[in-house]
Amino acid sequence: MIIDCHGHFTTVPDAHKRFRERQLAGESARPPEIGDDEIRTAIERNQLRLMDERGIDVTIFSPQASAMEHHVADPDVAVAWAHACNDLVHRVTELFPARFAGVCQLPQTPDGNIDRCVRELRRCVAELGFVGLNLNPDPSGGNWTSKPLTDDHWFPLYEAMVELDVPAMIHVSASCNPNAHTLGAHYLNADTSAFMQLVLGDLFARFRTLRFVIPHGGGAVPYHWGRYHGLVARLERPPLDALLQNVFFDTCVYHQAGIDLLARVAPTANVLFASEMLGAVRGINPETGSSWDDTKRYVDAVVLSDDDKRKVFELNARRVYPRLDARLPPVA
Amino acid sequence: MIIDCHGHFTTVPDAHKRFRERQLAGESARPPEIGDDEIRTAIERNQLRLMDERGIDVTIFSPQASAMEHHVADPDVAVAWAHACNDLVHRVTELFPARFAGVCQLPQTPDGNIDRCVRELRRCVAELGFVGLNLNPDPSGGNWTSKPLTDDHWFPLYEAMVELDVPAMIHVSASCNPNAHTLGAHYLNADTSAFMQLVLGDLFARFRTLRFVIPHGGGAVPYHWGRYHGLVARLERPPLDALLQNVFFDTCVYHQAGIDLLARVAPTANVLFASEMLGAVRGINPETGSSWDDTKRYVDAVVLSDDDKRKVFELNARRVYPRLDARLPPVA
Repeated sequence: MIIDCHGHFTTVPDAHKRFRERQLAGESARPPEIGDDEIRTAIERNQLRLMDERGIDVTIFSPQASAMEHHVADPDVAVAWAHACNDLVHRVTELFPARFAGVCQLPQTPDGNIDRCVRELRRCVAELGFVGLNLNPDPSGGNWTSKPLTDDHWFPLYEAMVELDVPAMIHVSASCNPNAHTLGAHYLNADTSAFMQLVLGDLFARFRTLRFVIPHGGGAVPYHWGRYHGLVARLERPPLDALLQNVFFDTCVYHQAGIDLLARVAPTANVLFASEMLGAVRGINPETGSSWDDTKRYVDAVVLSDDDKRKVFELNARRVYPRLDARLPPVA
Repeated sequence: MIIDCHGHFTTVPDAHKRFRERQLAGESARPPEIGDDEIRTAIERNQLRLMDERGIDVTIFSPQASAMEHHVADPDVAVAWAHACNDLVHRVTELFPARFAGVCQLPQTPDGNIDRCVRELRRCVAELGFVGLNLNPDPSGGNWTSKPLTDDHWFPLYEAMVELDVPAMIHVSASCNPNAHTLGAHYLNADTSAFMQLVLGDLFARFRTLRFVIPHGGGAVPYHWGRYHGLVARLERPPLDALLQNVFFDTCVYHQAGIDLLARVAPTANVLFASEMLGAVRGINPETGSSWDDTKRYVDAVVLSDDDKRKVFELNARRVYPRLDARLPPVA
């Protein structure tokens, strides 16, 4: 079985986008009625078509990351938007229960809004059957005004994650800072910053089963693996191996050399297959004739044993997302 | 000849540090008298010792990056500090003229201070014989409050760089933002952000001979080379090849897999040997018994022709830094 742990609903029906526009315009808009057929079509023509073409069985699916827009400060707007986005993802998981499992957007705001984030997480896991969450380490959108992930500001959320046994993918949203382009800098920088925050903190001594997936292949981290090993020693922090009990990387790196490096430096147990298809990079590599985001080709081509590939494609995701494992047929 | 294009004076005499402390305490301190012997010792025991051990002939040398502290807003303090730091580097280049060439720190402040940056650049090139400059794309120190590098805010500096024919290494200083650790996140994020700013702008259409070196192996960029190729196409920007007429990467990546990736994806003409020795990472890799920052070992071990290695070790640096070339014996 091939599990893609990083997909977003980037192809939502227009009515959902118009709802957001009205909401941002200050109208007290209600989420639109969207028919099953409209959702089915949006998925079948896009994600499901590509999953079938590429041989991906299941996608862990969440609302569009850049549209989370946690920089919008109104907590009621944040809650209403997260509700609408998560409910839409839930519809997808109900229409295609064997192919999609839900991960939720939280109603984060620059001030935190943590209690209501916890409430939405609980709703999504308990009522909608979601298997994880996306956690934005910079709800300000590129201005980095909040506390590091190791600060106790975030602890109520971590307590709920541990209780519910769900991991978070660390994923920022759109950048409001012209210095950091959303897709070409902010996403990768956030991955790198978050990893280093975890290096510096002692979060997993307190929350032993807390788990984070760092997307986009871990940002800059695996490319600078030696730098991190050296820094950890210089800063007298525990070896990286300790951190890697709780921290994982996805494979959203869009060329063979990058995936080869990731496989060379990161333990196989820490790499989860993912493509973020129809996300940041949606074209075809003219040199290969394949889509940049068809990461399965790169992972297929990497030098790993069959057992290790099975971990990357399936078993690691089942371990990191136990509620996904419970939804799936048993391991064959 | 082996040229290391990225060295900082991280081992300055204590009197220089005490001057900075008094300056930050608001005292109208004057730069200390430091004897030649003290400077000679600081260099011979550290950088020069390692250069000789590792077979590095020349280092392009600049003030300690994390100590530039451009977030200190007082423009007079910035000017006095840049003067003192650059003068100290100049002393090194006078004591060891065959082994060190100077690169200057600018008196940047969060507000810019561009006119006085230009003045200091001119002084360092014309009077001190420096061959380049360090340019901080985030003088706020991790809060990213200034304009992107493609904004006309920076143009007076670029005009001087073009006139003087000196390249800039893009290098931030200490982070004041607890979300981004200076060495483990801010440096790498700045490299990545700056590269993407250059992708999005048309700077080199206006300044055709302007040249930037992006340190730390280009931050996250080479690891995500496919992402950038795909983004450039999606955003309808010119191919990366065009940008690479003006943008270069150093080899400050502290493990073999990282250097192998850099050599695999970046054109050889765009890679300049560097180690940033005695910088961020100062320990020994217990698995190899060598220093993490002994990047010459990694470049030696990479699969490249002798001609290509010569470009990386010497010829590219001579081309990117023509004032360095003019200081050195002719190519053998």
